[in-house]
Amino acid sequence: MKVTVSRKAHFNAAHRLYRNDWDFEKNEAIFGKCNNPHFHGHNYELIVSVTGNIDPETGYVIDMKVLKNIIKNEVEDAFDHKNLNIEVIEFKTLNPTAENIAVVIYNKIKPLLDNSLDLEITLYETPRNFVSYSGK
Amino acid sequence: MKVTVSRKAHFNAAHRLYRNDWDFEKNEAIFGKCNNPHFHGHNYELIVSVTGNIDPETGYVIDMKVLKNIIKNEVEDAFDHKNLNIEVIEFKTLNPTAENIAVVIYNKIKPLLDNSLDLEITLYETPRNFVSYSGK
Amino acid sequence: MKVTVSRKAHFNAAHRLYRNDWDFEKNEAIFGKCNNPHFHGHNYELIVSVTGNIDPETGYVIDMKVLKNIIKNEVEDAFDHKNLNIEVIEFKTLNPTAENIAVVIYNKIKPLLDNSLDLEITLYETPRNFVSYSGK
Amino acid sequence: MKVTVSRKAHFNAAHRLYRNDWDFEKNEAIFGKCNNPHFHGHNYELIVSVTGNIDPETGYVIDMKVLKNIIKNEVEDAFDHKNLNIEVIEFKTLNPTAENIAVVIYNKIKPLLDNSLDLEITLYETPRNFVSYSGK
Amino acid sequence: MKVTVSRKAHFNAAHRLYRNDWDFEKNEAIFGKCNNPHFHGHNYELIVSVTGNIDPETGYVIDMKVLKNIIKNEVEDAFDHKNLNIEVIEFKTLNPTAENIAVVIYNKIKPLLDNSLDLEITLYETPRNFVSYSGK
Amino acid sequence: MKVTVSRKAHFNAAHRLYRNDWDFEKNEAIFGKCNNPHFHGHNYELIVSVTGNIDPETGYVIDMKVLKNIIKNEVEDAFDHKNLNIEVIEFKTLNPTAENIAVVIYNKIKPLLDNSLDLEITLYETPRNFVSYSGK
Repeated sequence: MKVTVSRKAHFNAAHRLYRNDWDFEKNEAIFGKCNNPHFHGHNYELIVSVTGNIDPETGYVIDMKVLKNIIKNEVEDAFDHKNLNIEVIEFKTLNPTAENIAVVIYNKIKPLLDNSLDLEITLYETPRNFVSYSGK
Repeated sequence: MKVTVSRKAHFNAAHRLYRNDWDFEKNEAIFGKCNNPHFHGHNYELIVSVTGNIDPETGYVIDMKVLKNIIKNEVEDAFDHKNLNIEVIEFKTLNPTAENIAVVIYNKIKPLLDNSLDLEITLYETPRNFVSYSGK
Repeated sequence: MKVTVSRKAHFNAAHRLYRNDWDFEKNEAIFGKCNNPHFHGHNYELIVSVTGNIDPETGYVIDMKVLKNIIKNEVEDAFDHKNLNIEVIEFKTLNPTAENIAVVIYNKIKPLLDNSLDLEITLYETPRNFVSYSGK
Repeated sequence: MKVTVSRKAHFNAAHRLYRNDWDFEKNEAIFGKCNNPHFHGHNYELIVSVTGNIDPETGYVIDMKVLKNIIKNEVEDAFDHKNLNIEVIEFKTLNPTAENIAVVIYNKIKPLLDNSLDLEITLYETPRNFVSYSGK
Repeated sequence: MKVTVSRKAHFNAAHRLYRNDWDFEKNEAIFGKCNNPHFHGHNYELIVSVTGNIDPETGYVIDMKVLKNIIKNEVEDAFDHKNLNIEVIEFKTLNPTAENIAVVIYNKIKPLLDNSLDLEITLYETPRNFVSYSGK
Repeated sequence: MKVTVSRKAHFNAAHRLYRNDWDFEKNEAIFGKCNNPHFHGHNYELIVSVTGNIDPETGYVIDMKVLKNIIKNEVEDAFDHKNLNIEVIEFKTLNPTAENIAVVIYNKIKPLLDNSLDLEITLYETPRNFVSYSGK
């Protein structure tokens, strides 16, 4: 009896999409306005979804208080009110696209969960654009 | 050609998370504020999703009016403005966590659907916490 | 140059609408399902709006961190995961309708704000029903 | 490393549910208010979800600007502010139920995507009713 | 102690914006896509807001069950799944813009309320466009 | 017969809250995380509300296509995907708090509207924090 439990969270950050090994024209052609060298930013809305069996004793798949703390430590404290390119080590050499941010968040949270649990990360970069990743 | 059709509904209810066979301290340690003996409550938002083939005659997977009535009879009339622990028979001996409520709703609706249809229940306990269950 | 700044917050609670000095039939006639003696509950979504001049030094009407703390102390800590009728002193003798809850919240927050600031409370009892009160 | 990227869009349209080869009574019995011969209408909200590998050069599954243009050309320009039954060729002989509209949108967009990409269409007919189709 | 209570409702309808006494070119120039002679449509989301004193006996400004019935009788039954231009008498000679629809709804509901109550109508034509009218 | 018509729009931007004439410690004390010298960012959601009489010929207070273009020219093209502090001239010497951004937007749009029309700007900095300004 597998149930998925999901928790929403959010963080605000600045970022820029570009590659150091491309010249400005190529970055502009591929990343357009997202290549602004002065950065732009987003309110990222995050959904962390954990799938597993219901513990028959508690009726929980995972204690939401535990999951909330993991999200706070791994995502909010690390990314909130930060410049992702400059201040978040994972994006020193990785373009902070929504896709890559979702993968990074997945890789930070997955090892902290019991092995029997599946994880999916959904990340809204804007209310109109979002991505999801489940480690497959 | 499998399509999933979803219908939203809602109900308001009081509940308390605890186990009779645990003492107050253990209930407090596990369920925290949710163990309040005077109860607290939620606006539960429900999404009922039914997957099946499109009927080539009508263009429907299932008539939404039929699905709406099933939800009204099985969920809204049974749970709305109720105390789940005291007034809903399924939770006399089952902790009314969001996970367990989703499973109970699934088990009430599934037998009323044509055998060829799959069912998924998504239940928002708050706008920030939700669960889903599809009978697997 | 008056600007209104608003902050959202939320709390979950159980309640019941009834009057001690009416018999059950009259309570049932007036309050319907909300008169359930076993209580029901809601996710209350709250918007606290403060109107005043922009401080030319900071660009703030009020520091959101200050406002967030006031809401936490006066509303969330007092109401969240509580039974409003039994556990919140203001509703011992006052029916916890959305209207009355909004007035109580207004009366708790207003004295903590600078005298030059106006206050409006908007309270969603459900996503479909809400009230607002601005002390007039 | 499969990631799903989703883009929201919308269009407003009139439609009517009925079959030419049924008499009015049968159409009324099956389609109810949706059989109004003078039409009614909706704000359709659309989510187009594309699943594939992250391009290690760009960090994109698909360039959102490309996806946005496909949606504009295939869906918005074709359906927005239109009468689906009368003005959209796919619904001359196909009932414009939400299910069928989702399949039509899928069939228009899928051939324009790289073969390695999976596609899912989610279509909200109202904020309370929605369907999804992924070509299976 | 004036409190405003609000109730959400919705209806789906087809409409067309044009004037009989203008030729097609002038209608096209002013109303653009909204002049489509085959109609288009919307999910109209409605907020009905009533302002008045709290009744000290009940704690209500107005009984929501009463307000809900007024909205059902005056708006939902009259407009839902209808073609506004053809089937709703108020729009036989009045262009069904969001502005005019809001005024019509106001004029239908206001006489049914106690004289001491103020009324405001907010009408979303789409999630991005909305109007409000309070009889001033 | 005054009606208010509102249009939603959005832009993404980076910003930093601080004053040049304060040292880092004072900026940190007042602006906290918002003083990050590497910037952070937001998805700003904007509501532009215009109040006036309904034109009896068209049924419009203002043509939404006209209002949409004003918002595009004055706000989206000027602020979207920009660093507000560095790239938007109005914030060279003005702290880009939500309050100040709302006033700047008001001052850009008001002169472009007919004198008889009132204007209100509502700006969501996050889904939880928003401000409004109507020139009073």
